[in-house]
Amino acid sequence: MTLAGNVHVIIMAGGVGTRLWPISRRSRPKQFQPLLSDRSMLVDTYERVLPLTTPDRIWLVTGTEFVALAHQQLRDVPERNLLGEPVGRDTAPAVARAVAVIARHEPGTFVLATPADSFIGDPAAYRDYVAAAMQVATNGAIVTLGVTPTRPDTGYGYIQRGERIEGHPAAYRVRHFTEKPDLETARRYLSAGGYYWNMGQFVFRARQFMARCAVHLPEVARAMETLAQYDQPTAEALQAAYEPLSAISFDYGIAEKEANMAVIPTALDWSDIGSWRAVKDIAARHGALPPSSGNHIRVGGENCLLLTSSGRLVVTVGADGYVIVDMGDALLVVREDKAEDVKEAVEEIERRGKGEWL
Amino acid sequence: MTLAGNVHVIIMAGGVGTRLWPISRRSRPKQFQPLLSDRSMLVDTYERVLPLTTPDRIWLVTGTEFVALAHQQLRDVPERNLLGEPVGRDTAPAVARAVAVIARHEPGTFVLATPADSFIGDPAAYRDYVAAAMQVATNGAIVTLGVTPTRPDTGYGYIQRGERIEGHPAAYRVRHFTEKPDLETARRYLSAGGYYWNMGQFVFRARQFMARCAVHLPEVARAMETLAQYDQPTAEALQAAYEPLSAISFDYGIAEKEANMAVIPTALDWSDIGSWRAVKDIAARHGALPPSSGNHIRVGGENCLLLTSSGRLVVTVGADGYVIVDMGDALLVVREDKAEDVKEAVEEIERRGKGEWL
Repeated sequence: MTLAGNVHVIIMAGGVGTRLWPISRRSRPKQFQPLLSDRSMLVDTYERVLPLTTPDRIWLVTGTEFVALAHQQLRDVPERNLLGEPVGRDTAPAVARAVAVIARHEPGTFVLATPADSFIGDPAAYRDYVAAAMQVATNGAIVTLGVTPTRPDTGYGYIQRGERIEGHPAAYRVRHFTEKPDLETARRYLSAGGYYWNMGQFVFRARQFMARCAVHLPEVARAMETLAQYDQPTAEALQAAYEPLSAISFDYGIAEKEANMAVIPTALDWSDIGSWRAVKDIAARHGALPPSSGNHIRVGGENCLLLTSSGRLVVTVGADGYVIVDMGDALLVVREDKAEDVKEAVEEIERRGKGEWL
Repeated sequence: MTLAGNVHVIIMAGGVGTRLWPISRRSRPKQFQPLLSDRSMLVDTYERVLPLTTPDRIWLVTGTEFVALAHQQLRDVPERNLLGEPVGRDTAPAVARAVAVIARHEPGTFVLATPADSFIGDPAAYRDYVAAAMQVATNGAIVTLGVTPTRPDTGYGYIQRGERIEGHPAAYRVRHFTEKPDLETARRYLSAGGYYWNMGQFVFRARQFMARCAVHLPEVARAMETLAQYDQPTAEALQAAYEPLSAISFDYGIAEKEANMAVIPTALDWSDIGSWRAVKDIAARHGALPPSSGNHIRVGGENCLLLTSSGRLVVTVGADGYVIVDMGDALLVVREDKAEDVKEAVEEIERRGKGEWL
């Protein structure tokens, strides 16, 4: 934990959260919304990492249109740390954007890159794993945290471990990243052991990351190093940097290509808060019902999650395995095993010319 | 149809419609609400019977607190025809109340008593059956209409026919009334034939009815004949007449005891609009969606009925076999095969001290 004071943290908050409509809206994506507590996911993420560092070492990368919103929610973070992207190009450019700035001033520092939309049941244990990851990253590795799977989940990517890393009994080389597997494959991973859910958390040293980025994604590295020369890049400079880039994730663009990748297996209670099913699962595991879900009467069908911001009385009769999201202007009733299809519903809303509800 | 001009019609509108919450409310029960058309069930019933008679021969029996509401909806019916009950004592006293008034002035007239909450698919055919029932009632019988069952429904009462009535080829003596049967019994009725759903529609002559009522329910007949002496009974007189009576339905109190009962089988498309399941079934058969149900997007699960008065966008994903009722202050999500349990939900609302939503 002695290294922790120096770490910079990059919060990746560029997602749009389509599958969490109608709480997630175009003008206010999911990470800026309270969902499992009375704070937004972004603030939950900030509070989770804050004990590792100081507010001026916390960075946010999000759409330019959300920088003001982020500033409202993260008052202690200097405005210069809130990095707006004119267009989303996925997580590899987002991370590179912030690391390029950090590396100009503190090239040797450790960096943690974390999504803004993760649920982590035990933040203190998480911080201990991050500290362990920094030790492994000392010599230049990119280190990721993995969660020991408890079920054959087909909604997550998996990391297969290789051999143990000398001097770091809790860390392994990464043998392979796999995308969301089918059920049979996921079952095989679970019974074989040595596979971990990919949390999307990465720890590395700033200068080493930029060096590896220059190898794997040279256009990205160049564009972000150019931007990092400005204190406040102009809209034109931002556009010129981002527009030509292809969208590419940290996993595809960096992690899968990098030879010096390590994974630290964890027993964290973790979820990607990507769908209403995930929200319901977390609420069920933790009794963590949102604060505004009180005015609900159920008859039969206990297995039903209600989120409401309307204050209306909501009565469910025999509704089992559903999530109901009751907002002022919109209502969603979704069967939990169809939670991915909310994306289709959002597309249909668009097609029908009801964009004002998005 | 030559007899029709003289008929008096009593619309029984004393129900509370608990199972149709949240459209049915204490201050505005279901029969006063639009549900399957843009008119209330009461107005639908009034329009259905109006071609049989004239507005001054149409009577309504309802709670005293709803007389003003009924007057707003039935502007052509004289106020003296809107009979308020200080307490509900079920349908036998309600019918007797109106017949006692009618009989004072036109003892020989035919009377049709009809619930305010029936759906009847073909009103013209219905009126023809009523005209036929009047012919059968000429000699003093109480005549009811039965619906030839198309499925072993356990939600309706059944009427077993006896022998054919001479001179009336379409009418039978009633052998037996049965309450809602279990599924096995309902199946037996269906395969045996000669059983009909009890629509709760009764046709008789006024004086004969009062005579039979005096035999079967003497307290009811006395109380209502006393009230009928007043042009406008005082609240005290009403209370004195109703308070001592036991609640008893027309079926139990009159029809099941009466020897001279006849039934006319019909092929009417009829439903008792008693539950959300019934509403959904009718909507499915007739494509009769309520006028305000437009702002609904479905993904998967086509078998889902939405009623909304809020104008909100409602999205259902994978919701199959559900009714969703979306009001300004309350939302109900009910699985259709649990529609009867809305009653329990209403009791729970009461227990939790949320009576303002009832």
